[in-house]
Amino acid sequence: MGDRQAPVRPEDVRRVACIGAGVIGGGWVAHFLARGYDVTAWDPAPDAAERLQRLLAAAWPAVTELGLAPGGRRDRLSIAPTLEAAVADAQFVQESAPERLDLKVQLLADLDAATPEGVVIASSTSGYGMSEMQLKCTRPDRLVVGHPFNPPYLIPLVEVVGGESTSADTVAWATRFYELTGKRVITMDREVPGFIANRLQEAIWREALHMVAEGEASVEQIDAAIVDGPGLRWAFMGPCLTFHLAGGEGGMAHMLDHFGPSLEAPWTRLTAPALTEELRDAMVAGCDAEADGRTISDLVAERDRGLVAVLRVAEELRSGRP
Amino acid sequence: MGDRQAPVRPEDVRRVACIGAGVIGGGWVAHFLARGYDVTAWDPAPDAAERLQRLLAAAWPAVTELGLAPGGRRDRLSIAPTLEAAVADAQFVQESAPERLDLKVQLLADLDAATPEGVVIASSTSGYGMSEMQLKCTRPDRLVVGHPFNPPYLIPLVEVVGGESTSADTVAWATRFYELTGKRVITMDREVPGFIANRLQEAIWREALHMVAEGEASVEQIDAAIVDGPGLRWAFMGPCLTFHLAGGEGGMAHMLDHFGPSLEAPWTRLTAPALTEELRDAMVAGCDAEADGRTISDLVAERDRGLVAVLRVAEELRSGRP
Repeated sequence: MGDRQAPVRPEDVRRVACIGAGVIGGGWVAHFLARGYDVTAWDPAPDAAERLQRLLAAAWPAVTELGLAPGGRRDRLSIAPTLEAAVADAQFVQESAPERLDLKVQLLADLDAATPEGVVIASSTSGYGMSEMQLKCTRPDRLVVGHPFNPPYLIPLVEVVGGESTSADTVAWATRFYELTGKRVITMDREVPGFIANRLQEAIWREALHMVAEGEASVEQIDAAIVDGPGLRWAFMGPCLTFHLAGGEGGMAHMLDHFGPSLEAPWTRLTAPALTEELRDAMVAGCDAEADGRTISDLVAERDRGLVAVLRVAEELRSGRP
Repeated sequence: MGDRQAPVRPEDVRRVACIGAGVIGGGWVAHFLARGYDVTAWDPAPDAAERLQRLLAAAWPAVTELGLAPGGRRDRLSIAPTLEAAVADAQFVQESAPERLDLKVQLLADLDAATPEGVVIASSTSGYGMSEMQLKCTRPDRLVVGHPFNPPYLIPLVEVVGGESTSADTVAWATRFYELTGKRVITMDREVPGFIANRLQEAIWREALHMVAEGEASVEQIDAAIVDGPGLRWAFMGPCLTFHLAGGEGGMAHMLDHFGPSLEAPWTRLTAPALTEELRDAMVAGCDAEADGRTISDLVAERDRGLVAVLRVAEELRSGRP
């Protein structure tokens, strides 16, 4: 950012502004409060403050259970009367407005105008690229996507990606800042609609909607299929590494060579890419890199330990229901 | 099944035959042994017995930790020299051969010829319909799909679905039997390629392959996106109920009305169905049925308890790595 360098280092941030305090924005408020920041929130909805207090009351047991940072307190929240007041002395701004492009473009321009020079402004957008949102900003270099998952006070993932006018410094600053707040960050070097996690999640969601629309499965069957099936593994082992183990001792290479033909089967409405030698090798190399020295046996043991523990969690939740 | 009624009730089964003893078949062996059955396995591969023993050794700590059924012991396994010997006195047969249709058609015909009358034969096929597999069987009414997830000794899900020639009694018998062995069963009333869970899983998998092929994300980013993001929720709350909460206090109805337009966004390569009034209402009604009296607040509290517990599991696994 050159002479527009952020005025504080990520380590020195104390005051965060959350713009929009619905499910996602309010979840960010809970996250930053729990991590010991002063938070100023602004939301134009008439009942926003009341809803935010309800959200915080609901969130607090979980963040407390996970462990509050020193200084993590609910009373370090203030509600600003205007957008300008909310960001006036902010050292970081998280925007979580409704998902409408025209609204985001104008809101980010307003935030850019009101926020102190050099302060990074991140958008929680679920899928817009920053390039299409930063168009009206006069200092677009400090705007970046910081996409969380619901609820932001518990799910660690944040996807960070800049737009065409975002500086590399801003991307690096946001990555570091989120990590300091306890987040696990995926920093993307190119804009992809829906980023990564939402693309994958949306693929499941759309297939599910098709199935319900066609009478192929009910809502309850779809949810049961995930929570009693692959969802149990995905809590700690991603789909690629999971399939690395489906190949037995031969790993991903065997799996692709063995199940490759099923990519042509009508198992979902999404057509698969051609399984070229190049793609096959990329998947195998990627799994090897991710395994990072863990053998198939190591991974099987880790998966099984994880499954036993997660099955217990699921059983406890089930038995705790009214 | 009329006069071909299964000779034993599901409750009375003691002897199970597992045909094919690779990753899935061997996993079934571990499951049935742990649940206290006598298991006879057959696999034509020369090193099958040795691989099966390695698989059992790897699986046993987890099934022991979860709790063995009375009589659950590894030494109740016998390896049969032939397919015919394996099923000669079986009271249930689980077929887990490689995923090739011609092979399955012939193998199921051979099993049908060799298995005592009335005994149910289930196939672990990942996606073929029983209608296309039971063609050469003389008693196709007792053949059914019983599709597990890897590893079958830990993942509870089994999808049960018959083919055109499968009797309703067989479907009911298999459902009951699997449940008695501790499985959670989804019984489908129509054949859908890939059933339910594999269709959903395959949608993610294909989107992931496209992303790697196009350089949009790496294998490690894809897996991190799931395990640090939506995968944490899916271990105990399916994608539909998860989105029910994304709508805040308005639930699925608000979520669809609010995020409906994103179904037209290029967030995945899979096009979404039109969000008709009928589909919207079906999703809302399905979530209400699944919530079964639990309010949004109840579900938020349950989700948060689950996330705290699953985050701990993930952290323990991470810290246990070499």
